[in-house]
Amino acid sequence: MPRYALKIEYDGAPFAGWQRQSHQQSVQGTIEAALARLEPGDHTIAAAGRTDSGVHATAQVAHCDMATDWDPFRLSEALNYHLKPLPVAVIACAPVAPDWHARFDALERRYLFRITARRAPLVLDAGRAWQVKTPLDAKAMQAGADHLLGRHDFTTFRATHCQADSPIRTLDAVSVASVPSPLGQQVTIRVRARSFLHNQVRSIVGTLERVGCGAWQPDDVATALAARDRTACGPVCPAHGLYLDGVRYPVDPFA
Amino acid sequence: MPRYALKIEYDGAPFAGWQRQSHQQSVQGTIEAALARLEPGDHTIAAAGRTDSGVHATAQVAHCDMATDWDPFRLSEALNYHLKPLPVAVIACAPVAPDWHARFDALERRYLFRITARRAPLVLDAGRAWQVKTPLDAKAMQAGADHLLGRHDFTTFRATHCQADSPIRTLDAVSVASVPSPLGQQVTIRVRARSFLHNQVRSIVGTLERVGCGAWQPDDVATALAARDRTACGPVCPAHGLYLDGVRYPVDPFA
Repeated sequence: MPRYALKIEYDGAPFAGWQRQSHQQSVQGTIEAALARLEPGDHTIAAAGRTDSGVHATAQVAHCDMATDWDPFRLSEALNYHLKPLPVAVIACAPVAPDWHARFDALERRYLFRITARRAPLVLDAGRAWQVKTPLDAKAMQAGADHLLGRHDFTTFRATHCQADSPIRTLDAVSVASVPSPLGQQVTIRVRARSFLHNQVRSIVGTLERVGCGAWQPDDVATALAARDRTACGPVCPAHGLYLDGVRYPVDPFA
Repeated sequence: MPRYALKIEYDGAPFAGWQRQSHQQSVQGTIEAALARLEPGDHTIAAAGRTDSGVHATAQVAHCDMATDWDPFRLSEALNYHLKPLPVAVIACAPVAPDWHARFDALERRYLFRITARRAPLVLDAGRAWQVKTPLDAKAMQAGADHLLGRHDFTTFRATHCQADSPIRTLDAVSVASVPSPLGQQVTIRVRARSFLHNQVRSIVGTLERVGCGAWQPDDVATALAARDRTACGPVCPAHGLYLDGVRYPVDPFA
């Protein structure tokens, strides 16, 4: 069976997350339904990142198996036709080896989190960034974030219902940037790791926001990490500022 | 009566444009209704740019008169409270002289137009950029745009129902930029002028897109301008890529 890698953009708002659910709309279920319009029968696709409800993606990667050979461009066009009007689109499609796996072959996931600090409600970025009302000190946030770099037990920063066997993860990069803008201070937090625990990014961002507004000191992040206790975490931030924006493979299937 | 300048952001999608309409929702009418919640009675506000249906603003400027003295910050907070849940927000508010006028004192309006060139339907930028399917040659677009710089009879580039007394306008700047992105080629067109004719920006952008995709040569823009004939214009592009993103005054009231 020919296998294809799909690069997928979606707005997380109307979905109960990536993973197929029996009674709720999911990104996976939506794409599988579109595949069934092209080739009748059951389709099961696997993705690099099983994003939570409300989380967006600019570059989710999944793979699908087809019964017949498809021109990759035609396959993406046909899928996009059937995905309408839902906010999901296949932005790249490439043939891959039959044993290539979007999830197991991924070497790294990259996430972006967007915060806007301003008093007025968000308008054009509503649903696209987390609004906070207090200006954030990005330098202090970076200093706090630096404590999380490397290999650690991230028990503090994972959901209590996280199903990963181990709370040990290696955070390869975390960078905080801030740009002023007429529409409010724009703070972006970018993280990279081979894999993440459930709610890890949102737990980290919610904690760093506490540092940015001055409620926590940067070193308090180290204390929270060392506690290996979920209750030591800052408040988990909302999903709608989070974007899965890259997946790295030994060889980029879309290059 | 104390007068206040308001800087306003809005998503144009749910509005029949800036200007108050008797039977349709407008940005002006929405803000006037919010003002009436603060001080009962009729309110009439004036704006620098009377944007069309569907056009967005990141920095529209208007002024309002109040019966009592308001702290500007409290006035913006109170207005934003009553504007919810519509996608309009007051992002700055400042006291101005009683004869200061948002429209007549404006020296310059700036507009931004966003185009995304890609095959897949837009997802996160749906409603925020005009999607075209053919890659655009930004250099050729800039060469075409340069013919429009300066003082000209813009009859070709204004709506047939434009009510301005004269079709003569001075275009002070028009710049075309293109950046590649994983989500598609992002083309931005920025224009500056003391004032614009009805549909002038969208007529210019629609014409430049023809140049960008290769259907027109850059010099064809000069020919179209010289024709002073509405039928010589390229197709008017859609409103949802257009943003009023700046108004200049002799002294910035918000500085």
